[in-house]
Amino acid sequence: MDMPIDMQHQAMGYDRTATMFSPEGTILQVEYAQKTVRLGISSIGVVCSDGIFILADKRIGDALIAQKPIIYEIDSHIIASSAGIVSDARVLIEKAQLLAQQHRVTYDSPIEPESVIKEISDIKQQSTQYGGVRPFGVALMIAGVYKKRIQLFTSDVTGNYLSYYANAIGENDEKLKEKLRKSYKPDLTLKKGVKLALDIFKEVQEKKFDINRFELAYIKKDTEKLERIEGEKIKEL
Amino acid sequence: MDMPIDMQHQAMGYDRTATMFSPEGTILQVEYAQKTVRLGISSIGVVCSDGIFILADKRIGDALIAQKPIIYEIDSHIIASSAGIVSDARVLIEKAQLLAQQHRVTYDSPIEPESVIKEISDIKQQSTQYGGVRPFGVALMIAGVYKKRIQLFTSDVTGNYLSYYANAIGENDEKLKEKLRKSYKPDLTLKKGVKLALDIFKEVQEKKFDINRFELAYIKKDTEKLERIEGEKIKEL
Amino acid sequence: MDMPIDMQHQAMGYDRTATMFSPEGTILQVEYAQKTVRLGISSIGVVCSDGIFILADKRIGDALIAQKPIIYEIDSHIIASSAGIVSDARVLIEKAQLLAQQHRVTYDSPIEPESVIKEISDIKQQSTQYGGVRPFGVALMIAGVYKKRIQLFTSDVTGNYLSYYANAIGENDEKLKEKLRKSYKPDLTLKKGVKLALDIFKEVQEKKFDINRFELAYIKKDTEKLERIEGEKIKEL
Amino acid sequence: MDMPIDMQHQAMGYDRTATMFSPEGTILQVEYAQKTVRLGISSIGVVCSDGIFILADKRIGDALIAQKPIIYEIDSHIIASSAGIVSDARVLIEKAQLLAQQHRVTYDSPIEPESVIKEISDIKQQSTQYGGVRPFGVALMIAGVYKKRIQLFTSDVTGNYLSYYANAIGENDEKLKEKLRKSYKPDLTLKKGVKLALDIFKEVQEKKFDINRFELAYIKKDTEKLERIEGEKIKEL
Amino acid sequence: MDMPIDMQHQAMGYDRTATMFSPEGTILQVEYAQKTVRLGISSIGVVCSDGIFILADKRIGDALIAQKPIIYEIDSHIIASSAGIVSDARVLIEKAQLLAQQHRVTYDSPIEPESVIKEISDIKQQSTQYGGVRPFGVALMIAGVYKKRIQLFTSDVTGNYLSYYANAIGENDEKLKEKLRKSYKPDLTLKKGVKLALDIFKEVQEKKFDINRFELAYIKKDTEKLERIEGEKIKEL
Amino acid sequence: MDMPIDMQHQAMGYDRTATMFSPEGTILQVEYAQKTVRLGISSIGVVCSDGIFILADKRIGDALIAQKPIIYEIDSHIIASSAGIVSDARVLIEKAQLLAQQHRVTYDSPIEPESVIKEISDIKQQSTQYGGVRPFGVALMIAGVYKKRIQLFTSDVTGNYLSYYANAIGENDEKLKEKLRKSYKPDLTLKKGVKLALDIFKEVQEKKFDINRFELAYIKKDTEKLERIEGEKIKEL
Amino acid sequence: MDMPIDMQHQAMGYDRTATMFSPEGTILQVEYAQKTVRLGISSIGVVCSDGIFILADKRIGDALIAQKPIIYEIDSHIIASSAGIVSDARVLIEKAQLLAQQHRVTYDSPIEPESVIKEISDIKQQSTQYGGVRPFGVALMIAGVYKKRIQLFTSDVTGNYLSYYANAIGENDEKLKEKLRKSYKPDLTLKKGVKLALDIFKEVQEKKFDINRFELAYIKKDTEKLERIEGEKIKEL
Repeated sequence: MDMPIDMQHQAMGYDRTATMFSPEGTILQVEYAQKTVRLGISSIGVVCSDGIFILADKRIGDALIAQKPIIYEIDSHIIASSAGIVSDARVLIEKAQLLAQQHRVTYDSPIEPESVIKEISDIKQQSTQYGGVRPFGVALMIAGVYKKRIQLFTSDVTGNYLSYYANAIGENDEKLKEKLRKSYKPDLTLKKGVKLALDIFKEVQEKKFDINRFELAYIKKDTEKLERIEGEKIKEL
Repeated sequence: MDMPIDMQHQAMGYDRTATMFSPEGTILQVEYAQKTVRLGISSIGVVCSDGIFILADKRIGDALIAQKPIIYEIDSHIIASSAGIVSDARVLIEKAQLLAQQHRVTYDSPIEPESVIKEISDIKQQSTQYGGVRPFGVALMIAGVYKKRIQLFTSDVTGNYLSYYANAIGENDEKLKEKLRKSYKPDLTLKKGVKLALDIFKEVQEKKFDINRFELAYIKKDTEKLERIEGEKIKEL
Repeated sequence: MDMPIDMQHQAMGYDRTATMFSPEGTILQVEYAQKTVRLGISSIGVVCSDGIFILADKRIGDALIAQKPIIYEIDSHIIASSAGIVSDARVLIEKAQLLAQQHRVTYDSPIEPESVIKEISDIKQQSTQYGGVRPFGVALMIAGVYKKRIQLFTSDVTGNYLSYYANAIGENDEKLKEKLRKSYKPDLTLKKGVKLALDIFKEVQEKKFDINRFELAYIKKDTEKLERIEGEKIKEL
Repeated sequence: MDMPIDMQHQAMGYDRTATMFSPEGTILQVEYAQKTVRLGISSIGVVCSDGIFILADKRIGDALIAQKPIIYEIDSHIIASSAGIVSDARVLIEKAQLLAQQHRVTYDSPIEPESVIKEISDIKQQSTQYGGVRPFGVALMIAGVYKKRIQLFTSDVTGNYLSYYANAIGENDEKLKEKLRKSYKPDLTLKKGVKLALDIFKEVQEKKFDINRFELAYIKKDTEKLERIEGEKIKEL
Repeated sequence: MDMPIDMQHQAMGYDRTATMFSPEGTILQVEYAQKTVRLGISSIGVVCSDGIFILADKRIGDALIAQKPIIYEIDSHIIASSAGIVSDARVLIEKAQLLAQQHRVTYDSPIEPESVIKEISDIKQQSTQYGGVRPFGVALMIAGVYKKRIQLFTSDVTGNYLSYYANAIGENDEKLKEKLRKSYKPDLTLKKGVKLALDIFKEVQEKKFDINRFELAYIKKDTEKLERIEGEKIKEL
Repeated sequence: MDMPIDMQHQAMGYDRTATMFSPEGTILQVEYAQKTVRLGISSIGVVCSDGIFILADKRIGDALIAQKPIIYEIDSHIIASSAGIVSDARVLIEKAQLLAQQHRVTYDSPIEPESVIKEISDIKQQSTQYGGVRPFGVALMIAGVYKKRIQLFTSDVTGNYLSYYANAIGENDEKLKEKLRKSYKPDLTLKKGVKLALDIFKEVQEKKFDINRFELAYIKKDTEKLERIEGEKIKEL
Repeated sequence: MDMPIDMQHQAMGYDRTATMFSPEGTILQVEYAQKTVRLGISSIGVVCSDGIFILADKRIGDALIAQKPIIYEIDSHIIASSAGIVSDARVLIEKAQLLAQQHRVTYDSPIEPESVIKEISDIKQQSTQYGGVRPFGVALMIAGVYKKRIQLFTSDVTGNYLSYYANAIGENDEKLKEKLRKSYKPDLTLKKGVKLALDIFKEVQEKKFDINRFELAYIKKDTEKLERIEGEKIKEL
């Protein structure tokens, strides 16, 4: 067989279910799901000295749509963005919101952001191991401030999550991350961090860049409360 | 293999179940289900300054059928239309009606329209992720007035839903939406909005247009109560 | 591939389960089940000014069979006929009878005919969406009088149901309906309606027509009670 | 493809499970199961003016077998014969016996024969609609006298059942029924009816006919109690 | 296709699961399981005037094996032998022993042998009708004396069981039965019956016959208690 | 087809699941699992006049491994060895240990060794009959002394178990058993029995034999307590 | 067929599910999963005279990632490292942490390290035997000190676990283990053991070796408490 290894695996059917390893030890259904994520909405999250923010490109320009925020409020001290299948994301975001709410009701205190990402990632991991379900085709970024500690997490399609100083998900994620790696500094203020993120989007999107498509949500370290701005106002932060 | 990519995917079987991603990261069964929606009944929904309406083309002209309204009453302040498999739609509409009724019984107050679309969309999302079920082959449009706020939602086959100023589902949806995008203005009154929607149908349906096949349901912002008119009377609104 | 689209779909296996959409967005197993219905017993139902009736061709002439009515009594004010797999029909009819009985026991009043058709149609819809079950291969016609309102419903294989003034199911349904469309008038009395239905059967069945094979069940608007006649006596109604 | 339609369907796999319709709207697994019935033990049941009987050809001549009756007692007023897979039949007969017993315990009165055939037929119908089970490969004949009413039912592989004046199941059923159709008269006494049935067996089985292989069970209208005779004694009834 | 019908059915896959009928109406998996039975241990059971016995060829001559009886005690008045998959047999025998024990505990009286064979056969029947299980690859012979009545039953792979005067299961069953048919007489005493069975084994096994490989278990009509002898002592009964 | 019968069966797929019989009546998945057992650790068990022992070749010479006993203690009077998939064995051994412990807690007395092997073998049998599970790829040898009775059992992959005077499992089992058959005598003392087993291993393993790889566990008839020795010390028993 | 045996097995589909044995008695899905482990993070664990340590190569050099320890704390006296699918590892580590916590709550005392590895390995074993789940693609190393006993375990993909003096998992595991075998001595102190492990990594990784990528966790025999050092500081231990 002189087929490339990819086509061989497709012909052999190793890519038909998430509960099957290929002879190379990979799970192809999960890799396909990751492609969906790369087609999703772009967002950048950055840990700053005085808080944390997520900047997202709403991308949809349909005048008929009554645009709702695409940076979700999980609780007043935790925000999230997603890339991938929108309805999958909604289901996971609703679970996260419920978790935060239940924590408040049960312990009368805010939930730690890592508890949220861990729980959501466990649900994702299961969807890649048990039969009869497809993997969630979605990456999530979760940002929060909890007891003065600023935290940024990203969870991928497999249910793996890591803690970041700065990260990007969705379309062009690799290019955005490369520029973040070059320019990120731990002493960035929210003001400078947002400017940096906007500049990076400008560079990567080139002519397609349009400030009006952007949405910003940030949490200051001292208030631990979500604030939002959109479009041109982002520049004036 | 020189087959077009579509036929390759069919030959490889990526389109046999809704729990499988294709190598491009798409779920083909869901895309097929969307074709069913495009064959369905057309309806236009528009948010107006003094209320909201759905205008639908009943299309069926069979003299033997004792035509029932095809714009459903979810509750006295929420209406809905659908496009796609009629029995799938009925099941979801009945769920929505039950939700509204349970809310009234439990809280002694009307349900918020977004709660309805969210619950229905969650049911749809699950039918695209879990094995042994096929996706619901239906798009839903839900319109309502709640505490003076006028809301229009559309939920697609995947269980994704968005909020709209104006939207169209079913046959010719793309053409209808294009014209809505050009002519929609936020200050439209119900009277003007309905006229606009009728004009759009006329343009798109050309000779097939017949006022007698149309059904209108609207909710005024001040009364928050559903009203209905049919056929020629629509013009006299 | 130069195969006709039908054979292509068969070769690709889109028609193997009711939980699969074909690339055209249709569910082929459901379409096959509909063929079974077209081989079934013919019956005509008509809403008249003074009541409603179903006229059915028993078709079986086997002298050994102790013919039982094929127009079922759901309750004293509701009757039904079916076309398709006889054992599937029996199961649904028994469910309908149980529903009616439970309603009497629970509310001490007769059930509304539409409640019956809705419940039965929901069971049918589920058999087309969930795996491990085949669709019910049966169409049902349900006729009733309830609080002086005369109602006729027909539910197809998909679980879709509509309200009719007059309708036909089973063998030759399209020909029978075409003639009904031409001759039906809302002011038909039971007497005239039955005559019309007999005439239509005569025209369509031609030489095979035999009055002795026919069975009539009707409910008068004023009594709301089922009455039955068979064979030659039908003419004397 | 120039294959006959049967072989085409086999090649396409429409005959692999009872939950699949063929493109012609038939369920092939059920049709295969019916072949098993045609290989089964023959029995004739006849409604007479003074009672009802089943006459069955035990067929097995193995001297080692301690022949047990093959006409089953469901209750003292109901008898049954079967054709097809013997262990399937036993399971259904045991269910029928249990039903009759439970009815006696619960209501302190005998069960109506039609309740028995209906319940058993519902179990059969389900085995043709739900996945993971094969259809019961058995036809049942149930005869009884209940409140002076004499009843004969036959249930086929699909779970369809009908009421008969006289019927035959198992090997040569079509030939036996044809002769029954010619000779059956409603005023037959048990004595004459049994003679008729024996004559029919003789004609159909020709040289293979052997009175010693036959078993008779009958219920007189006035006693409503099962009686049995075997072999030569049948002639002396 | 000029393949023999057997190979055609194999190629078409009708023999892959016990829940599938072949186009001839047979269940091939069950037929395959029966081959396993024909490879099993041979045993003969005979109803005698003064009791009942099973004579079995232990066949295994491995000096390392601490031979346990292969004629099982179900209860002190019921014995059993098996042919086929040994672990399948053990599971069924354990179920039978448990049934007998539960009967003693519940009713303070011995269980009827037919209740045992019926229950075990029902378990077997189910394993041939429901998916996800393979048929039990085992035939069982059950012999007992109950209230002075002597009973011998054999249950095949399908879960069908019959009552016998004398029978053989396992290797060479057909040859053994043929000889039993010729020589069996109802007035055989245990002494004569055992001699007959030994003679039959000798004739069929020819040179391979070895009295030391045989095991005898019998129940006298008057004591209703199991007794055992092995090897040479069998001759001296 | 001129393929050997083995390859034919593989090509036909009879070896894909443990719930399928091949046309010869064998279960191929179970036969494959048995190959795994033949690759496992060798051990010999022998019933002696004054007790019982298991002698096992630990085989692993990896200096990094902190060798744990490979002859397991089920209870102080029962020992076990295994051959095949190590994690499967552990699961079954843990079940056996739990059984023994529960017996002590419930009845305040040691469990009979046969109860242990029976329970474990039932679990194995089920894994060969029910779908969705693979057979346990492991053979077990269980040795014990209970109320002065010395017992040795071996359970194979199918869940069949037998009682032995002496037996071997794992690599070279056939050769080891052949030599045991020649030399075993019921009057062997533990001292002589162990010497015999060592000699047999020496003969079969030839140059690979290394006393340091061996592990011995024995239970004296009078104490009914497990004792252990390893390596050179085994010779000095 | 002249294909290599590997490709034959792939073509025959023996490698599609973890519940299938190949004709050689191996479970191919499990072997594929093991390849994933060989691509994972490398870590070395060593039992020393005065304690135990795990030294791991974090490998990730992405400046955006807020590196979290990759040597997990199961409890204050037990540490763990993993190699393979990161989200699978997290799920198992979380289970281990929960076990340890529950033990403290229930018995008010620390859990034994072997209890942890046993429980986790049982979960892994099940994922290789039951259908509808894929095997966990992860190897785990668990190290602990409990009542002055120092213990090191490694559990592979099949759920098999062994006790070690020293071991390595992940990338280059075979090379690392070979060097450990040569240099390991039971009287190594923590100081010398860590130096040895660093030297081994240096030799194997050659130019890629970078002390800053390493993370060390150790537990002293006398304190039974986890301590951690990273990067250059490891040399100064």
